[in-house]
Amino acid sequence: MNMKIAILGGTGDIGEALALRLANDTTHEIVIGSRKVNKATESASDYEELLEEQGTDATISGAKNPDAVENATVVIAAVPAFHLSDTIESVTSGLDNSVLISPAVGMERDEDGLHYNPPSAGSVTALAKDASPENVPVIGAFHNLPAGRLGNLDKALDWDVPIIGDDHEAKATVTNLITEIEGLRPLDAGGINNASEVEAVTPLLINIAINNSGMHDLGVKFN
Amino acid sequence: MNMKIAILGGTGDIGEALALRLANDTTHEIVIGSRKVNKATESASDYEELLEEQGTDATISGAKNPDAVENATVVIAAVPAFHLSDTIESVTSGLDNSVLISPAVGMERDEDGLHYNPPSAGSVTALAKDASPENVPVIGAFHNLPAGRLGNLDKALDWDVPIIGDDHEAKATVTNLITEIEGLRPLDAGGINNASEVEAVTPLLINIAINNSGMHDLGVKFN
Repeated sequence: MNMKIAILGGTGDIGEALALRLANDTTHEIVIGSRKVNKATESASDYEELLEEQGTDATISGAKNPDAVENATVVIAAVPAFHLSDTIESVTSGLDNSVLISPAVGMERDEDGLHYNPPSAGSVTALAKDASPENVPVIGAFHNLPAGRLGNLDKALDWDVPIIGDDHEAKATVTNLITEIEGLRPLDAGGINNASEVEAVTPLLINIAINNSGMHDLGVKFN
Repeated sequence: MNMKIAILGGTGDIGEALALRLANDTTHEIVIGSRKVNKATESASDYEELLEEQGTDATISGAKNPDAVENATVVIAAVPAFHLSDTIESVTSGLDNSVLISPAVGMERDEDGLHYNPPSAGSVTALAKDASPENVPVIGAFHNLPAGRLGNLDKALDWDVPIIGDDHEAKATVTNLITEIEGLRPLDAGGINNASEVEAVTPLLINIAINNSGMHDLGVKFN
């Protein structure tokens, strides 16, 4: 069944990568959200061009964030952790029938490399839940995907996507969506209280890329 | 070059698994350490029998922890996190020329599943460093390996082993050792300040095993 998918922060790296993969591998309607409508529509047509180069005829539209979420079944909050609450609060009136996906991770960098740095809510996924209206199911997903390789449609993927959430129906919707992207395997990683262990993998991926020559843009597989 | 490897807590699940794999895949001298010498020697001969069933003729000895570490090049502290400081302190006089490997992880379980629960040192690896004499290099490794499958010599492995440490020479010793175990790939995951991200993968592995049918005894691969 075709769904409307809104990608808030769809002009950023991970937003672009998710938009390209979703438009390339599925037939869902993709809307790029941004604070500025011009930026959103420009990115949307850039992505259409990139897809056309791949031989994929996709229609991607752009809109201000609050307009992008109208009637969206899935809303992906692809914004940095420190913008997440503000961004969700700017669109709450349109979220009534949506599942909200939170892919952001809190990290800090120092001379030793990257460290997981969760907000006081315990995880960024929990922060997204706290910022959302109570009736909106929040799912954590896409935390551990490197934007560069995800967005490069010439690259085949072979990664797992741990999914976090307390709402079974919403989790099933996101699980099915991820299954549609070639090379991604959705895995249930528990409830929102288990989100920090998933988010903490992202700084580890970067530390491994920093410290091992020939490894970059890493994802993870569980076996 | 053959080394003596002492496995403190070598009678426990992960200690047994490491002893069996090391004895099966390498020619290093393996000594099982325990607080009680009888328990250590009994486990050692049990492991020899298991290896003989595989056609591997290995000599594994058992000793009290402080005797086990004498002249060991590598000491693996395969004890639960809450025994780690006591165990290291009971053997410090024999550690002068050893690399200490810390594989333990702090976890707690509640109704949501497993959670990473680091000690106040920031990670169990950092706790091991704090408990060790200053001249003893401490390396974090083997955190993310499930004892059941690791110790089942009928099973082929295909896992990564992130390695944590601040001493380059000791890290190289452990990296080379892990390379000798078939199906394990050592990866440099940074310094001791980056240990918590590695340790936090273990509760995630268990949560994924709990929540996904057909998945159990999981390890991790980065690609």
